[in-house]
Amino acid sequence: MDKSEQDALKKAAGVEAAKLIENDMIAGLGTGSTVKFFVDELGRRVKEEGLHFTGVTTSSRTKVQAESYGIKIVDIDDVPQIDVTVDGADEVDQNFNGIKGGGAALLWEKIVAINSKKIVWIVDESKVVDTIGRFPLPVEVIPFGAQHVIDRLKNRGYAPTVRMNAERTPIRTDENNFIVDLHLNRIDHPQDLAEDLINTVGLVEHGLFLNMVNTVIVGDPRGPRVLTNSNK
Amino acid sequence: MDKSEQDALKKAAGVEAAKLIENDMIAGLGTGSTVKFFVDELGRRVKEEGLHFTGVTTSSRTKVQAESYGIKIVDIDDVPQIDVTVDGADEVDQNFNGIKGGGAALLWEKIVAINSKKIVWIVDESKVVDTIGRFPLPVEVIPFGAQHVIDRLKNRGYAPTVRMNAERTPIRTDENNFIVDLHLNRIDHPQDLAEDLINTVGLVEHGLFLNMVNTVIVGDPRGPRVLTNSNK
Repeated sequence: MDKSEQDALKKAAGVEAAKLIENDMIAGLGTGSTVKFFVDELGRRVKEEGLHFTGVTTSSRTKVQAESYGIKIVDIDDVPQIDVTVDGADEVDQNFNGIKGGGAALLWEKIVAINSKKIVWIVDESKVVDTIGRFPLPVEVIPFGAQHVIDRLKNRGYAPTVRMNAERTPIRTDENNFIVDLHLNRIDHPQDLAEDLINTVGLVEHGLFLNMVNTVIVGDPRGPRVLTNSNK
Repeated sequence: MDKSEQDALKKAAGVEAAKLIENDMIAGLGTGSTVKFFVDELGRRVKEEGLHFTGVTTSSRTKVQAESYGIKIVDIDDVPQIDVTVDGADEVDQNFNGIKGGGAALLWEKIVAINSKKIVWIVDESKVVDTIGRFPLPVEVIPFGAQHVIDRLKNRGYAPTVRMNAERTPIRTDENNFIVDLHLNRIDHPQDLAEDLINTVGLVEHGLFLNMVNTVIVGDPRGPRVLTNSNK
């Protein structure tokens, strides 16, 4: 599949997700190449259908894009709750356990997610897996004492690497923390792993989103495929 | 007891703790009014006894004080482990569960603590309690979505207040986060509470230090009293 075919599938998933946004809703707008199509479609509906809603974003990129369509963006603390959040994911399995944070915004993404009544992920087929973990699991680490955290993660066999930018210095998150990628290959017990990670002092948050998503919309050549999480 | 009497007890505890620092050790130096006497005594030993060791600090205040005595201070990531850390505490009970973070440095303090072979707290008698919790428990909260975290803490009955500075704006930690104080009055199940707090997305760390300390040195008019944690 070439890039234009893949983009067509992403767009189809994004357009499908945009149907979930209704007038006067508060919508969480994620980040990523698939979400971009979703926001484009929302912009179209604002212009052509007079759709009006309020958005909360997890990145300045999406904020700029949405505001260019006249969508009102507010701070997460200015709304009591988010009706529905549409975001991408790096991997998701059949139990609706996923990995997010490839874009280094996992903390804000998780904060938006837990404050959302409904969570929708839009992905292409390559993100749907039997077992998560081939995608490196990002964790956010406080710089103070970071080497000790990394050593601990290494001792547990998690094969951590500090994510670098083009200048070969560690990238910093919005909170000025490091992103450490864990090369696990496969995660057989995601709940145990999450427990272990969250109890590591100096590790702020991890990219495991376990049974948080309600609906996954998968771009598919035969039309968007909708996976519904019945355990939510 | 007036301030000069209390200071005499704090000093006695600090002097007692300073005996634990030996040549070539790596020592964690905490923060606070009692720790100040401890560092003063280390400075005296450096000058009069030729004591030589390396320090790791949790605050710039202690760093400045220690360096004024010619004590070498290094970054926590420059040492493999800390031999002994001496710090204060806001409360400690008979099970060696304590509250720290009154000074808003709980995250760095906890990172230093977990990387220490031995932890010693120096306190005055007023800090030794039957049940911890009368002292407000500080937690560190990411600004993004902070109001939602505060609402959750409120709903759980934790009576949170955002710590303010003299200008009546929220104080910021070294990581630029908020400090929220939980007014619990008494904490009957500290382990359950710690579990609940650490699983709150957006809450980075809490001031519960449960069964982490090895030795508590209490300033006492009859001479420093040493409590040894046999479960460590």
